[in-house]
Amino acid sequence: MTLRQRIGAFVDQPAVQNFIIGVIVVNAILLGMETSDHLMATAGGLIRTLDLICLGIFIVEIGLKLVARGRDFFRNGWNVFDFVVVGIALIPTTQGLSVLRALRILRVLRVISVAPRLRRVVEGFITALPGMASVFLLMAIIFYIGSVISTRLFGDAFPEWFGNLPLSAYSLFQIMTLESWSMGIVRPVMEVYPYAWAFFVPFIMITTFAVVNLLVGLIVNSMQDAHAEETNAATGSYRDEVLARLVAIEERLAAQSGDNVMLTKPRE
Amino acid sequence: MTLRQRIGAFVDQPAVQNFIIGVIVVNAILLGMETSDHLMATAGGLIRTLDLICLGIFIVEIGLKLVARGRDFFRNGWNVFDFVVVGIALIPTTQGLSVLRALRILRVLRVISVAPRLRRVVEGFITALPGMASVFLLMAIIFYIGSVISTRLFGDAFPEWFGNLPLSAYSLFQIMTLESWSMGIVRPVMEVYPYAWAFFVPFIMITTFAVVNLLVGLIVNSMQDAHAEETNAATGSYRDEVLARLVAIEERLAAQSGDNVMLTKPRE
Amino acid sequence: MTLRQRIGAFVDQPAVQNFIIGVIVVNAILLGMETSDHLMATAGGLIRTLDLICLGIFIVEIGLKLVARGRDFFRNGWNVFDFVVVGIALIPTTQGLSVLRALRILRVLRVISVAPRLRRVVEGFITALPGMASVFLLMAIIFYIGSVISTRLFGDAFPEWFGNLPLSAYSLFQIMTLESWSMGIVRPVMEVYPYAWAFFVPFIMITTFAVVNLLVGLIVNSMQDAHAEETNAATGSYRDEVLARLVAIEERLAAQSGDNVMLTKPRE
Amino acid sequence: MTLRQRIGAFVDQPAVQNFIIGVIVVNAILLGMETSDHLMATAGGLIRTLDLICLGIFIVEIGLKLVARGRDFFRNGWNVFDFVVVGIALIPTTQGLSVLRALRILRVLRVISVAPRLRRVVEGFITALPGMASVFLLMAIIFYIGSVISTRLFGDAFPEWFGNLPLSAYSLFQIMTLESWSMGIVRPVMEVYPYAWAFFVPFIMITTFAVVNLLVGLIVNSMQDAHAEETNAATGSYRDEVLARLVAIEERLAAQSGDNVMLTKPRE
Repeated sequence: MTLRQRIGAFVDQPAVQNFIIGVIVVNAILLGMETSDHLMATAGGLIRTLDLICLGIFIVEIGLKLVARGRDFFRNGWNVFDFVVVGIALIPTTQGLSVLRALRILRVLRVISVAPRLRRVVEGFITALPGMASVFLLMAIIFYIGSVISTRLFGDAFPEWFGNLPLSAYSLFQIMTLESWSMGIVRPVMEVYPYAWAFFVPFIMITTFAVVNLLVGLIVNSMQDAHAEETNAATGSYRDEVLARLVAIEERLAAQSGDNVMLTKPRE
Repeated sequence: MTLRQRIGAFVDQPAVQNFIIGVIVVNAILLGMETSDHLMATAGGLIRTLDLICLGIFIVEIGLKLVARGRDFFRNGWNVFDFVVVGIALIPTTQGLSVLRALRILRVLRVISVAPRLRRVVEGFITALPGMASVFLLMAIIFYIGSVISTRLFGDAFPEWFGNLPLSAYSLFQIMTLESWSMGIVRPVMEVYPYAWAFFVPFIMITTFAVVNLLVGLIVNSMQDAHAEETNAATGSYRDEVLARLVAIEERLAAQSGDNVMLTKPRE
Repeated sequence: MTLRQRIGAFVDQPAVQNFIIGVIVVNAILLGMETSDHLMATAGGLIRTLDLICLGIFIVEIGLKLVARGRDFFRNGWNVFDFVVVGIALIPTTQGLSVLRALRILRVLRVISVAPRLRRVVEGFITALPGMASVFLLMAIIFYIGSVISTRLFGDAFPEWFGNLPLSAYSLFQIMTLESWSMGIVRPVMEVYPYAWAFFVPFIMITTFAVVNLLVGLIVNSMQDAHAEETNAATGSYRDEVLARLVAIEERLAAQSGDNVMLTKPRE
Repeated sequence: MTLRQRIGAFVDQPAVQNFIIGVIVVNAILLGMETSDHLMATAGGLIRTLDLICLGIFIVEIGLKLVARGRDFFRNGWNVFDFVVVGIALIPTTQGLSVLRALRILRVLRVISVAPRLRRVVEGFITALPGMASVFLLMAIIFYIGSVISTRLFGDAFPEWFGNLPLSAYSLFQIMTLESWSMGIVRPVMEVYPYAWAFFVPFIMITTFAVVNLLVGLIVNSMQDAHAEETNAATGSYRDEVLARLVAIEERLAAQSGDNVMLTKPRE
């Protein structure tokens, strides 16, 4: 066993994995504490030090994995994920980029890559995505068209909502979620353009219908997969056995009557 | 090969199709740029010229298809769709009809008719519609009745929301989507007519229940179709083989024992 | 053929049924016109007269059905429904009961009882109801408990929303539909009772979860029904034939070998 | 029959159960009446007395069950539930704890533990929970991360909504339910932080997608269970019989031809 293999075996040990989960949970609590001005005023130094220790442990763990697996490390999507969410903390945060400091909490998402059950749920989510790609693309086209139309028609009178394409896209997203679509947006717009409903009501119907179809498609797909997995194994082996036995009986009967011609054509 | 056949073959070439998709995407970006006053001020002439070139390419493409297919062109719904969304740009836009200029972006929808995957999604949507016709008709009846009742009861006190049938229908659509139904509409109405909830709460329940049933119906239909397609082929051929083999065994046994009478009645 | 049978045959004729549908549609338009003050001012007399003629036709039709079927008339739920929605118009409307005049539009619902496709959809809705009775009862209990608790806790400070049981039930219904639940109700309440979320957030979760389960139950039920109908007939007859043939083969073999003892126990 | 067995038999009698249901309903009405200041002013004493009698009956019933079952009483979750909801009324309510008085209405939930149909619905809900544990845990992680990020980024400017972790979690819950998310929260936030949508829009998409997947998982699970229960019994016994008969036929044929070697391997 080479050193690399030994390191790999060490890192994959259940005890090490559980230790890492523990560190993630502790780190999550520490990062939560950092949001409290009161706690930071009294024990800010301790919290920051512990946070750095947690970060150090993650870096050592990922470093060991990198050494053990070499290039293969980056072939696994979860490893890349771990690498990125830990790496965020190492980017020097100049004053303007306080966003990056806030994103350090994404490190907690590492618990998903370490806990197999959560991992499977997320992988289930991700495998559902490609089947929805066409509908998503269609939604993107509808949103683009809707944004252009609403910017041209309502942009001058309502620059706050439909002043340019991104603003329109955001407003249409809000309308699709049905949040204040009528009282907040369409009724005011209709006071200037009385026929605005002829754009917004069909937009709501089409996007809602698309979302419902997305949902139906998801359900039907999951169902078929579940159904197929569950029943096909049992059914397949049963059917194979029945056919094998039937062929055997026929062959025996053919042998008895001295002719070898099968009456039924063999199974292809 | 006649000239018409040659033109038809040329237009259906993958390379030409991909070129058209490219032109649609470029045209979509151009029409998006036209919404920006800043861009139009600096490069308005160029954008308009490129837009006209894109339009010209579409007209030539559709013209070639028209020549190649003759009357059959209009038998395909997607061709009619292309013809209309491109044709919109050719309607002379007098000042009042700036809406038509905004609708030119609908041309981007051509990408659906050209890309087979998107086409299939939309065709899936459209085939789902007839199964929902009864529920839609029922919803229309409920909305009409609801509009008449709410106009008569609340129209005088709340002309803005229930002043006439179209206003009531719009307000009821808003209430069905649950947007501000209570705080925005029903609570103010209840200050004048304390029993207004006796109309609106059942209305919400009935329309929501109808929508849920629509959804359930859609799921069950898609499911049955998917299930039938998937399993029936395999099951059918298996069952046919089992029965054929059983009949063969029986016939052989009958032949052995010298009597040709089948004990079981033949399969009808 | 007695006179009653002749009347029954006349009323059930397709031509008469279609005529009634036509009258319903005309009546629906007339009742819609009555909501317009402008139309009533110019042609109020004509509209009212035509409405009375429509009403007369309905009364004659239902009268004929009553004569033809006698007591059986009231055994069919749809007949009772027709009787009630037409009968509403005959209740003398004193000034205070303008509600009854507005309810005359319910007559349009007769189109459901006459058109078989719509009838089936509504019957589908109604047959789905008993399966949901338990969940509805549970929801009623949850709403009652929620109303009592919220009236006791928040009634004094927010009499407008939680002043008494009916007001609380209405507010909780609004909260269940998620309409302005937080910005409109719970945030203001939390300014007085900071822990109010501990009541409202679980209430939303429980009722939403119950509604989702209702939906799931509906889908699963419809599915099973659809599935059972579709497959069981074909599968059942196939299985019966396979077993019959197998029994026949065994019997023949038993007869050949001269012993009548079946190796496998007969199918019970 | 010992005294304990006799008491157990008495308590489980249908007549006693129905009596208890009656007392629960009466008690529910009494507790509802207590919310009315008017009723309490005129008949407060009577209502309180009747409430105490109901409470007494419950205490006696649960006491009898405790005597009859001994320690086993607490092994049944429903018994513990009854014990707790009745026991709430016995906690001395000092002035500050008027919440406990309001919670006495939870006693009405006892109707669920007594009525078998309601009990089954609730048990159905509870058995659905473990299958959703992973998704719930994931949602909790997403909410924690979202709370930390939004507190850090928006806490200073919007202390009312994102001032600390619990406030942020509540606001994010509101945003997940789509209530006033845009007009109420995100648009005001975007006036200070123009890129706030880059946090909230993905948050909405991810949590909504997770909820949809939860729903889909629930439907697929219920479906499989229902499907399995319904078909597997019939299918299993049919398959067993077919295989048994086939084996018997082969054995008989093997016996006839004098060799005992089976051509097909026995079913494992």
